[in-house]
Amino acid sequence: MKNSYQFQHRHILGIEQLSTTDIIHILDIALSFKEISTRSIKKVPTLKGKTIINFFFEPSTRTRLSFEIAAKRMSADTFNIAASTSSAQKGETLIDTARNLEAMNPDIIILRHGSSGAPALLTRYVTAGIINAGDGTHEHPSQALLDMMTVRDHKKSLEGLKIAIIGDIAHSRVAHSNILGFTKMGADVHVAGPATFMPPHVDTLGATVAASVKEAVTDADVVMALRIQKERQDDPLIPSLREYAQFYGINKSILKHAKPDVLVMHPGPINRGVEMNPDVADGEASVILEQVTNGVAIRMALLYLVMGTQGAEV
Amino acid sequence: MKNSYQFQHRHILGIEQLSTTDIIHILDIALSFKEISTRSIKKVPTLKGKTIINFFFEPSTRTRLSFEIAAKRMSADTFNIAASTSSAQKGETLIDTARNLEAMNPDIIILRHGSSGAPALLTRYVTAGIINAGDGTHEHPSQALLDMMTVRDHKKSLEGLKIAIIGDIAHSRVAHSNILGFTKMGADVHVAGPATFMPPHVDTLGATVAASVKEAVTDADVVMALRIQKERQDDPLIPSLREYAQFYGINKSILKHAKPDVLVMHPGPINRGVEMNPDVADGEASVILEQVTNGVAIRMALLYLVMGTQGAEV
Amino acid sequence: MKNSYQFQHRHILGIEQLSTTDIIHILDIALSFKEISTRSIKKVPTLKGKTIINFFFEPSTRTRLSFEIAAKRMSADTFNIAASTSSAQKGETLIDTARNLEAMNPDIIILRHGSSGAPALLTRYVTAGIINAGDGTHEHPSQALLDMMTVRDHKKSLEGLKIAIIGDIAHSRVAHSNILGFTKMGADVHVAGPATFMPPHVDTLGATVAASVKEAVTDADVVMALRIQKERQDDPLIPSLREYAQFYGINKSILKHAKPDVLVMHPGPINRGVEMNPDVADGEASVILEQVTNGVAIRMALLYLVMGTQGAEV
Repeated sequence: MKNSYQFQHRHILGIEQLSTTDIIHILDIALSFKEISTRSIKKVPTLKGKTIINFFFEPSTRTRLSFEIAAKRMSADTFNIAASTSSAQKGETLIDTARNLEAMNPDIIILRHGSSGAPALLTRYVTAGIINAGDGTHEHPSQALLDMMTVRDHKKSLEGLKIAIIGDIAHSRVAHSNILGFTKMGADVHVAGPATFMPPHVDTLGATVAASVKEAVTDADVVMALRIQKERQDDPLIPSLREYAQFYGINKSILKHAKPDVLVMHPGPINRGVEMNPDVADGEASVILEQVTNGVAIRMALLYLVMGTQGAEV
Repeated sequence: MKNSYQFQHRHILGIEQLSTTDIIHILDIALSFKEISTRSIKKVPTLKGKTIINFFFEPSTRTRLSFEIAAKRMSADTFNIAASTSSAQKGETLIDTARNLEAMNPDIIILRHGSSGAPALLTRYVTAGIINAGDGTHEHPSQALLDMMTVRDHKKSLEGLKIAIIGDIAHSRVAHSNILGFTKMGADVHVAGPATFMPPHVDTLGATVAASVKEAVTDADVVMALRIQKERQDDPLIPSLREYAQFYGINKSILKHAKPDVLVMHPGPINRGVEMNPDVADGEASVILEQVTNGVAIRMALLYLVMGTQGAEV
Repeated sequence: MKNSYQFQHRHILGIEQLSTTDIIHILDIALSFKEISTRSIKKVPTLKGKTIINFFFEPSTRTRLSFEIAAKRMSADTFNIAASTSSAQKGETLIDTARNLEAMNPDIIILRHGSSGAPALLTRYVTAGIINAGDGTHEHPSQALLDMMTVRDHKKSLEGLKIAIIGDIAHSRVAHSNILGFTKMGADVHVAGPATFMPPHVDTLGATVAASVKEAVTDADVVMALRIQKERQDDPLIPSLREYAQFYGINKSILKHAKPDVLVMHPGPINRGVEMNPDVADGEASVILEQVTNGVAIRMALLYLVMGTQGAEV
């Protein structure tokens, strides 16, 4: 059975489209690539002569850099387009810009966009592989994959783990992809946060809404805090940062309710003292920097696997 | 005769400086390079170890990216400088900045600048090859070359073709370079647009000013719509966009007057529904995306040819 | 003795940490690398597969480009992060951003930052080599090294030379690093400028405060003008530009007091007619563009030497 498995996705739009076999395969490939980044010569010729475009409509340091490092360590040629310098300013539609990129024969376009569904839209107009690097409040699949990889590194299997995700569940593509991913892999996801941050559909995603952070964290194997969008703090949905930190911030005291070997995670960048206290972010349970390291490996795996399907009729 | 021909231009400042033999040579070289971009490994070692600087004083996605892709597919090292991050902010003159770049031993500087003549000015101060990627309202030679390449692909020869160019002829470097190029190659160029968009000297360039779009388009082999600069729409020279679309926009109805095998072109980015209707932009006659594809090939040819003359005493 | 010398700095934070032996070694290595940039194929495989991040919190054309060219000519993979697009906007601390970069296994991070001491701070949190590309008003070591290299090229030795530095000594990291470097190498540094530009501690750095520009320039082997920060001209510390040019600008007349073979230097970008007259900047004594050329060589040497210590226990 396993011999006959073939990764068949020409695009990575979300965790939703991936089977558990796909996810395990991606994590296995990523694990095998992780070592490349620790070599003295961090470069393999796998994607030599491939054209990979980072097309980012939202500012990003780590995700853009992570994909660019992944691509260059596999010897691809990379190109960065940021929305502020792109034709978007000149009024061109996303589809036209994408078709123009397509006409230059890229192999893969990595897209970050403020609108949910933008990467899926592109797949109808371009033949290059599309990797979703975050679309609106929808999905951020490479983030969920690196999170699953990080947990698997420590817990061997995701089956039966209790994962607590704390914060703005409704507007977080990270939360959305992680709920989909961890539940697919057999974990139980519990979410907590201000009521205004809870989406109506969260049960249908397979997550349990906890009545409090304490309830979510109790006996958890993983506690993941989501980032508060400080830039949105005038939003009436969001309490004051001080209040948020008091009721929803992850600190040592709340962590006592979790399992002794709990892993603390955060997608970054952290607002220290808001969604997580510094002593937790830098504490023994934190695997936050491992998440970043695994991010490069996951993106190498995605580029490799998507490239492998570009000639296919799928 | 052909054997003794040698491309001798150390810089590509405009179509004005190129002979018909030069143009044919560039198109032939570009055609031979086009296939590289369709390979699985899109990379040849031709320009390995060469330093190519994209120096853009105006925002651009496609032209900058097209040059960067062309350079990297030939294995050159590329560097991007955008005006907003450059020393221009610190008050340095263009010439000083260029001489500073020069001191770092670049092989080719690709310059886009808002002032007509800026690339020509640089050639007096630097020894690197200069390629004009658009200067003010003056020239955009690589655009005209890719346009000629696209038309030649379909029509075999440019001799005797009727080319209609519609829009802001007076302020368009694309129009200027195309009028020079197509007339050099023996085509008849007819232009139309609002009277305020017609330059006084257009006859001396070799183009015929048509009384109406219909007159320009009638029996045309090629209809090229120019981009309306929406950002300039407060300019009293420009009618409302709605009015412009009505009188000067290219639609199916006006195209009926052209030859049945007419090619529809646009330098991009398109303002859909203004200078061109979507059903035309996406219609059978449209070769707009071929223009983009040929753009990479033309830029590979220009980089290759200019590099070949850098040691020469020309 | 010389055989047993080994460059041992894992980071380049400032001239302060370098011994005269270190400085001579860097200049010698840079001289041997300088020739690479004049080759037809400007590329050696020395740093293949290395990850070098340009992390710039202040806009810069020449320094960023110089490091990027240096890195690519040694075959490293380079990545640019500008503060305006970085997580700094999202409120992340410098240390968190650096630790996140670190988690992606870079070999060297080149940092420019507005705060004095930022590169030193990073060395406590990351294991990658840190090269200071300018921090606040503190140091700009690669600039001082390229300046020393340029002077040594002409004068063979720096011992006993009289170096005049004119301008805003108090706020210039270039001045600071050059005073430290030239005095270490046995030169006498004399500084002049408006009283508000003279720091209280300049004597302790080893420089002599001259009563006038004329006094500083008299019999000087080198006259270096510092850049006036035009953007700060509302600063009450700074006289009008016209007044500055009149009293402190370097012109032919003042240069007559210097040695006949004086070298004129400027770190760029020049405000022509303010801190230096065009006839001086472009005159026979000017080595300003040599400084830029040597900058690439110095940065190649620094990248090479810092990379060599990355496995070491120093």
